[in-house]
Amino acid sequence: MPYRAPTGDYRFLMDHVIGFEEVAKTDRFAESTPDMVDAILSEAGKMCDDILAPLNRNGDLHPAHLENGIVRTSPGFADGYKAIAEGGWIGMSAGAEHGGMGLPMTLTTAVNEMMAGACLSLQLNPLMTQGQIEALEHHASDALKETYLPKLISGEWCGTMNLTEPQAGSDVGALRAKAEPNGDGTYAVTGQKIYISWGDNDFTENVCHLVLARLPDGVPGTKGISLFMVPKYIPDSEGNPGKQNDLRVVSLEHKMGLHGSPTAVMEYSGAQGWLVGPEHGGMAAMFTMMNNARLGVGVQGIGAAEGALQHAIAYAQERKQGKAPGSGAIIEHADVRRMLSTMKADVFAARAIAMMNAVAIDMTTATGDAGWKARAAFLTPIGKAFGTDVGIDVSSTGVQVHGGMGFIEETGAAQFSRDVRVTAIYEGTNGIQAMDLVARKLMDGGEAAFRLLEEIEQGAEAAKGTYPDLAEAVWQAAETLRETTEWLVEQDDLTQRFAGAVPYLRAFARVLGGHAHLSAAMAGDAVRIKLARFYIKRLLPEHASLLAHVREGADDLMAISADDLAA
Amino acid sequence: MPYRAPTGDYRFLMDHVIGFEEVAKTDRFAESTPDMVDAILSEAGKMCDDILAPLNRNGDLHPAHLENGIVRTSPGFADGYKAIAEGGWIGMSAGAEHGGMGLPMTLTTAVNEMMAGACLSLQLNPLMTQGQIEALEHHASDALKETYLPKLISGEWCGTMNLTEPQAGSDVGALRAKAEPNGDGTYAVTGQKIYISWGDNDFTENVCHLVLARLPDGVPGTKGISLFMVPKYIPDSEGNPGKQNDLRVVSLEHKMGLHGSPTAVMEYSGAQGWLVGPEHGGMAAMFTMMNNARLGVGVQGIGAAEGALQHAIAYAQERKQGKAPGSGAIIEHADVRRMLSTMKADVFAARAIAMMNAVAIDMTTATGDAGWKARAAFLTPIGKAFGTDVGIDVSSTGVQVHGGMGFIEETGAAQFSRDVRVTAIYEGTNGIQAMDLVARKLMDGGEAAFRLLEEIEQGAEAAKGTYPDLAEAVWQAAETLRETTEWLVEQDDLTQRFAGAVPYLRAFARVLGGHAHLSAAMAGDAVRIKLARFYIKRLLPEHASLLAHVREGADDLMAISADDLAA
Repeated sequence: MPYRAPTGDYRFLMDHVIGFEEVAKTDRFAESTPDMVDAILSEAGKMCDDILAPLNRNGDLHPAHLENGIVRTSPGFADGYKAIAEGGWIGMSAGAEHGGMGLPMTLTTAVNEMMAGACLSLQLNPLMTQGQIEALEHHASDALKETYLPKLISGEWCGTMNLTEPQAGSDVGALRAKAEPNGDGTYAVTGQKIYISWGDNDFTENVCHLVLARLPDGVPGTKGISLFMVPKYIPDSEGNPGKQNDLRVVSLEHKMGLHGSPTAVMEYSGAQGWLVGPEHGGMAAMFTMMNNARLGVGVQGIGAAEGALQHAIAYAQERKQGKAPGSGAIIEHADVRRMLSTMKADVFAARAIAMMNAVAIDMTTATGDAGWKARAAFLTPIGKAFGTDVGIDVSSTGVQVHGGMGFIEETGAAQFSRDVRVTAIYEGTNGIQAMDLVARKLMDGGEAAFRLLEEIEQGAEAAKGTYPDLAEAVWQAAETLRETTEWLVEQDDLTQRFAGAVPYLRAFARVLGGHAHLSAAMAGDAVRIKLARFYIKRLLPEHASLLAHVREGADDLMAISADDLAA
Repeated sequence: MPYRAPTGDYRFLMDHVIGFEEVAKTDRFAESTPDMVDAILSEAGKMCDDILAPLNRNGDLHPAHLENGIVRTSPGFADGYKAIAEGGWIGMSAGAEHGGMGLPMTLTTAVNEMMAGACLSLQLNPLMTQGQIEALEHHASDALKETYLPKLISGEWCGTMNLTEPQAGSDVGALRAKAEPNGDGTYAVTGQKIYISWGDNDFTENVCHLVLARLPDGVPGTKGISLFMVPKYIPDSEGNPGKQNDLRVVSLEHKMGLHGSPTAVMEYSGAQGWLVGPEHGGMAAMFTMMNNARLGVGVQGIGAAEGALQHAIAYAQERKQGKAPGSGAIIEHADVRRMLSTMKADVFAARAIAMMNAVAIDMTTATGDAGWKARAAFLTPIGKAFGTDVGIDVSSTGVQVHGGMGFIEETGAAQFSRDVRVTAIYEGTNGIQAMDLVARKLMDGGEAAFRLLEEIEQGAEAAKGTYPDLAEAVWQAAETLRETTEWLVEQDDLTQRFAGAVPYLRAFARVLGGHAHLSAAMAGDAVRIKLARFYIKRLLPEHASLLAHVREGADDLMAISADDLAA
């Protein structure tokens, strides 16, 4: 069941749903002509189909492992990585001054999704590097940029992100890693970090760790944290990998999935590090990296969902069972049709949201406009959480479509489900995303939310003549969402917001998905119209029960005490 | 994080929610006094806590495997099995004439759930035997009963269920296994069967396979299928295991979870078999076994959910992170509280439904009443599908509560999630359950459904004075469900029903859950009242969007063709 990158869907979204023409009209991204976009999508798609997808199962069957302190990666991963690096896909959106292609994040998002759909565990490596490139571009000194960016962009070196410690997960501010000035402008970094994705590998010349640590005069909490570049091999005067730094991989985790990606416990023992950004200003740089990675992780969920969907459709077309009309394959059964339609409609909705998010990032980059910036910030947690939830739901439904075969590892259906599970957890759990949405992202009094809702309602107005019932459903859903948003904004006690944060985020995604499907129906062919009708009539209604949950607030929930739960 | 069997919850349900007093009032089950119930629950609970739960991880880490054709089970499983057998828990509900305890299925259901919560993969073994016992009691000749029942009930022998073949899964009628008369009253059974749970083991003296096969004059389809007892070792004249039969385990599957349970491909090569029930009447006997197993599998889902819930609560009480008030543990965060409350409220709802199902079975056994029989038949697919869906959802939320640790296998959170996944697939996928519900189980014109809805509405009426808002919500939900049920019953084209079968089943379960929580609030303490409020206000509203999905019917869905999906 070969993977085929869904390039047509990206192109359709760019042309008809997410307003990519605005991006292409800017000076910054003027080169993103339709021909250029087609060339990029088709070339990246070919690599994903032919080179990366065949590696996916290797990662699961032959996990990355530690051999005398050295990480050995899964068979073929080195070649897959080489193809990604040589294609220029790591530095697609990086600035041209250090070898990047300077392409819009919208295109990078599409390419990231197809790489993730082909081989999630390998794709996580360049995804981490992309985040590091962006953090360095925005926050590093020129000297650091000169040394690191060309190598990271070319893929000769790769990057990791070191935040978590055993006692400091979602609460980054609790970290204990220390950095002491060496007196020569560098720092000695000491501490243990956990959950370091691709903490090491056997195919890049160097591994560049961005590590959060506290300087001696750093205050407790996040305000006392600084960011350091701590390379595995210290670059020599020519910028080539030199002496081994005082850091090591202590162990690799034994995980539910994503076995091809080595998740390391890292030990830093006075390792030499270089400050990135100002002293005690590490969180700002880290947020640049994390926001990039959050969009990227959301897209991992969508990629895995796409892979699981294709896999399930192929199986359902081939498997004969029962008295199905037509082909006699199980795809003819109404319940299988329902499962596959749900999967497909949800993948489209999540993909549209991720691409809207990327457009907002590109418009911010190109114009500096505060409205676009607020939109990008608002959509990031939604795209991350909804994209990864869709990844989990769709891949689980994919297992179900396979029946008994779904539980047998040989089919690969279960792997999608196991691999994608972590995406709802890393780069900030989906609960953290939802809390970010209802607290920080509504701090503007809901302005970014209301502007989005206006556009959704305008879209519904415009569709009224063509699809009165669908337009009405989307408009009504947006109204209900608006009322709940107004209610949320009024809650000064954040616990009232947090109690319903997750259902609120999902409801917002549901409504955005309705908007995207309605736009698709206005522009698309018969198939897109049918899928839009399915989504809007059958999946969108979920928003109402989610918003009812939100409106219940926190009181009755918090009345259920910890003791009550354990009773 | 030790497992503690939730005996208090079963007792509460029996006393206040599911009407167990009616069962205890019958002659058949007059021995089920409160003291007896307490003794049973507490003794079984102790075994689960002390003996079975510590084995759970062994099954995952050291899967059952094939060694020169012999199945070697996970470390400790033989001892665990011995404890189950010696406790009498396999034959709890079997008739006393062959050594069973003759206890109500309601009690067996509670004990099965706690064994499943403690060690799902091992518990699957006695669950299969229980189904076989019931099938033999109802359909086997006296000679077969004499030979097999005492050994199965004592656990010296165990039983399996052989339906599936590579081309015949949900479509059992497509099977190709053959049985030829040997001329001595026995049959030569030939064919390959797949997905045979506990197809062999190294701790029982014999393994008794109930095998579906076709006699030479059997018509195609399910009407030409007969059922055969095909023992691994042919009993000698004294009824002891004798000569090895012509059957073997070809291979064991490599599965996503439930590694402790060997899932076998079985090859029968003219193996000697004995007819169970009439020629060509195999499906009736198999349905006895499957209905028993369907309730049992639903309860497996609930058990796994309970295990995952306890695990998550313990972690959330212990893990400090962020600026949580009170204890400083993450259980103080509103979003974690929401996750745990959802888990707990859903486990209670699913458990109540399974126990209602068991009560209906017991009342049928005790009284032969057609109304109770129809209720049992109606609740079986709901209990199976909702129980296992709750198992999947709750265990996945359990992973989420653990954050990064959830994805690491060492914590055990992931194992609950992987193990329970198959319960939505085996013994009839949850899609098949839903189709059974909307087709066969509504063939009475909805009578069984409407009688349940009447009881729910009566319950709501009775609660009006005490909890007006909760009662009103449950009453309204029942009304909406009634209207949709009326609509479904009117649909002569079954495809119209099948298109919304899964959402309909879930909506029915949601409403039954509301009824159970409301009954609990009327009888319970402050904690049960709070949990009922949480469920009815925040989870029950889901029924509306599910029923909206159902009412859309099939036309728009079936308009999305197989080609459209693959486009």
